Amino acid sequence: MTEADLVHLDIAALAGLISAREVSPVEVATDYLERIERLDPQLNAFISLHSEAALRAASTAEAEIAAGNYRGPLHGIPLAVKDLFQVAGWERSCGSGFFRDLPERDSTSVARLKAAGAVMLGLLNLHEFAFGPTGVNPHHGTARNPWDPERVSGGSSSGSGSAVAASLVAGALGSDTGGSIRIPAALCGVVGLKQSYGLASRQGIYPLVAAFDHGGPIGRTVRDVAIMLQAIAGADPGDPSTAGAQVTDYCAKLDDQVSGRRVGVLVEMFADLHPGVDAAVREALGVLAAAGIELIDVAPPLLAEVGRIWNALALPESYQVHAADIAAHGAEYSPDVLARLELGHRVPAVDLLEAEIEAREVRAEMAELMAAFDALVAPTTPLPAPPIEGGSITFGGREVDGPAVLGSLTRLANLTGQPALSLPCGFTDEGLPVGLQLIGRHFGDDELLQLARAYEQATPWHQQRPPEL
Amino acid sequence: MTEADLVHLDIAALAGLISAREVSPVEVATDYLERIERLDPQLNAFISLHSEAALRAASTAEAEIAAGNYRGPLHGIPLAVKDLFQVAGWERSCGSGFFRDLPERDSTSVARLKAAGAVMLGLLNLHEFAFGPTGVNPHHGTARNPWDPERVSGGSSSGSGSAVAASLVAGALGSDTGGSIRIPAALCGVVGLKQSYGLASRQGIYPLVAAFDHGGPIGRTVRDVAIMLQAIAGADPGDPSTAGAQVTDYCAKLDDQVSGRRVGVLVEMFADLHPGVDAAVREALGVLAAAGIELIDVAPPLLAEVGRIWNALALPESYQVHAADIAAHGAEYSPDVLARLELGHRVPAVDLLEAEIEAREVRAEMAELMAAFDALVAPTTPLPAPPIEGGSITFGGREVDGPAVLGSLTRLANLTGQPALSLPCGFTDEGLPVGLQLIGRHFGDDELLQLARAYEQATPWHQQRPPEL
Repeated sequence: MTEADLVHLDIAALAGLISAREVSPVEVATDYLERIERLDPQLNAFISLHSEAALRAASTAEAEIAAGNYRGPLHGIPLAVKDLFQVAGWERSCGSGFFRDLPERDSTSVARLKAAGAVMLGLLNLHEFAFGPTGVNPHHGTARNPWDPERVSGGSSSGSGSAVAASLVAGALGSDTGGSIRIPAALCGVVGLKQSYGLASRQGIYPLVAAFDHGGPIGRTVRDVAIMLQAIAGADPGDPSTAGAQVTDYCAKLDDQVSGRRVGVLVEMFADLHPGVDAAVREALGVLAAAGIELIDVAPPLLAEVGRIWNALALPESYQVHAADIAAHGAEYSPDVLARLELGHRVPAVDLLEAEIEAREVRAEMAELMAAFDALVAPTTPLPAPPIEGGSITFGGREVDGPAVLGSLTRLANLTGQPALSLPCGFTDEGLPVGLQLIGRHFGDDELLQLARAYEQATPWHQQRPPEL
Repeated sequence: MTEADLVHLDIAALAGLISAREVSPVEVATDYLERIERLDPQLNAFISLHSEAALRAASTAEAEIAAGNYRGPLHGIPLAVKDLFQVAGWERSCGSGFFRDLPERDSTSVARLKAAGAVMLGLLNLHEFAFGPTGVNPHHGTARNPWDPERVSGGSSSGSGSAVAASLVAGALGSDTGGSIRIPAALCGVVGLKQSYGLASRQGIYPLVAAFDHGGPIGRTVRDVAIMLQAIAGADPGDPSTAGAQVTDYCAKLDDQVSGRRVGVLVEMFADLHPGVDAAVREALGVLAAAGIELIDVAPPLLAEVGRIWNALALPESYQVHAADIAAHGAEYSPDVLARLELGHRVPAVDLLEAEIEAREVRAEMAELMAAFDALVAPTTPLPAPPIEGGSITFGGREVDGPAVLGSLTRLANLTGQPALSLPCGFTDEGLPVGLQLIGRHFGDDELLQLARAYEQATPWHQQRPPEL
């Protein structure tokens, strides 16, 4: 097979070839590494590439499989993780200019991917310290959007979105505190899952806001994301939030019937959308209805408060996490990240405490809603990928600050901990991908994936590939 | 028996007479009510007296006991609670000028005291909303110290301390967020227990700081406090903090041997004491040593930070609890309480978050210490009861602001949740009581009470009564 064939296969298909010994993990890794070396100078998706380690891991996988010890659908599959995850022996930057560490141990999720046989290629670009929605990064360069290299790939997991969309990796892990997996997935036309809070460990992922942080998968298809979730899900003593993790088989029942399910349409999130996003997500609702989904408009009263509540809870903690580094390296932070962090310095404690009470109210309101609905649907972002050079974006007669609104629709699921997924649902007139967001019940990640899979099967969007550079 | 006999008996002795039907609960209640009516116009320990309800309850108790249905050592015993506890049908003021409610249900602790047969006499004075260490109260008048009516009885459970010391009640409940049970117990020469966090319910007690609030007993002897603790201890669905309550029999093993126990002396808390307090607490150490207690100086490194950490955690939440009332009734608060609350408005959220981390460190440090020690010992307050009129107090060549330092030694146990008790350990030259503070292991309230009982048995202080007014 040629590179063009192998690197564009999804994980499920590639795993079929590998398990049948029709292709070798070394061959696959080599193709991916060649493609990265050819395209990444333009795309900037990687912060560090570890070709030798990857080839060694691929050789090991090849030998294991040749010996009849096939581990499962990630065995021999080239993956990469956001440069926020600890990988033993690999220098980590967190997207920063000044921060460097050399972890002795893998983060739990990386260890689990490795245990599943995955071949780790390197560390992916991000918005500095995962604290921004664009991926614009003055220290490492900005990861480019494969659909239009003058545009951002979305943040904060910018390299993860870019690399998966451009077939530089078969799949990736990102992290999501306010939308940082789903936003780049939406802007790059791939699938990103922020699984249920407490389902996968954050041990070894540089923290931002403990109650909202998640590390989760980005892939080209819903099945690929389910395969990666399966590997990383489960309790981990290194992350107490996972003590009650409820894991099931995310792949076995992926094609279960979804007809008759009740899905709430978060109508307020369909307001003030970029027209290309608007058209695509409304068409998506039609597809869901045609699949037998019962769609009902819902307007949870506290929805309008979610952004403010998220800010009051997240900003002080993110500042506090960085306080010592700001004191020592303030001038070395990206200006926008520093400004965002410093917002947290000005939040009064009483606003934080009030927001904790309000967050409990939001959780109760959403729990009540989820007793009546199997899922909720919304756009992932109100606009498609903004230009890297910045500036305001005009649509619907309004000037919009892209970075300011990119994360406006994703924070709800961080506040509640519900699983939320973005998957491709079309393109704007400029040819930019649009993401559809599905939000499920806590620990109902399996049912959420089924719904997403049904939508995916009914649409051609996941088969679209960005133009070759 | 005459009033002078009955009202000065401790609960244990009174219960002996009642259970033997040598005195009737009605007789006891009548004696107490007469004494309250005679002395409370001067002492101001009660905010509301409920004589009729008390006599009805006493009649019921009398009938039950006459019928052979003796419930136990609180049956027919006249008690009262701080006017912060809900008592069904009794108007509650929380010590405020503007706040009034009329609870439909008893707080859990009051319900449990009633279920044990106690006769509730009324609601006791306090520092407004339990937020101050003196009990100075412009709305209801200041509870007086029976040992010197020109001095405060200590706050915030000022009426509880005063009433128990002056034999207006056989025992009382107070609440303690930073020392509000132990401080009045110390200043009034009685025994006050802030039991382990999570051992007794706060349901129905007006909140101040959820993680630090406790409702607990004040009595004339260690045994009386153990009897009241026994009644109120135990899990309550109305207060989730009690889910893991570990209850034992606090009275049965009260006289267990304490010789050979290791007690850490919190040396830093013995610095800068009023000379009368200094002399009394140092003599108390000698008594403990003579009882076979192994005393070892300890200086937990984080002890000096406890006050700051407590402030950063408690002030914002206490403001937040009162924010709506401050907006509507700011001018009606006691000026010192309003000023204290408003400190909380100025705390940055990042200081709160940092304090949460530091609080965990303090808890870890103290847990490690308690693995090596059965208890810790310190003074309860650095000075005896200050004058009601206020003004600075001079000792050791220093001018001290009484209210500012009264709570400096008690907040540690609120931060860690460990049980802590104050019991009388002598008098200053002016004849003011001094309190000794013993701090135990979490849910080791039984062992703490044993230690206190051993000290009490070795000393005459609990037998001293204030002069009759």
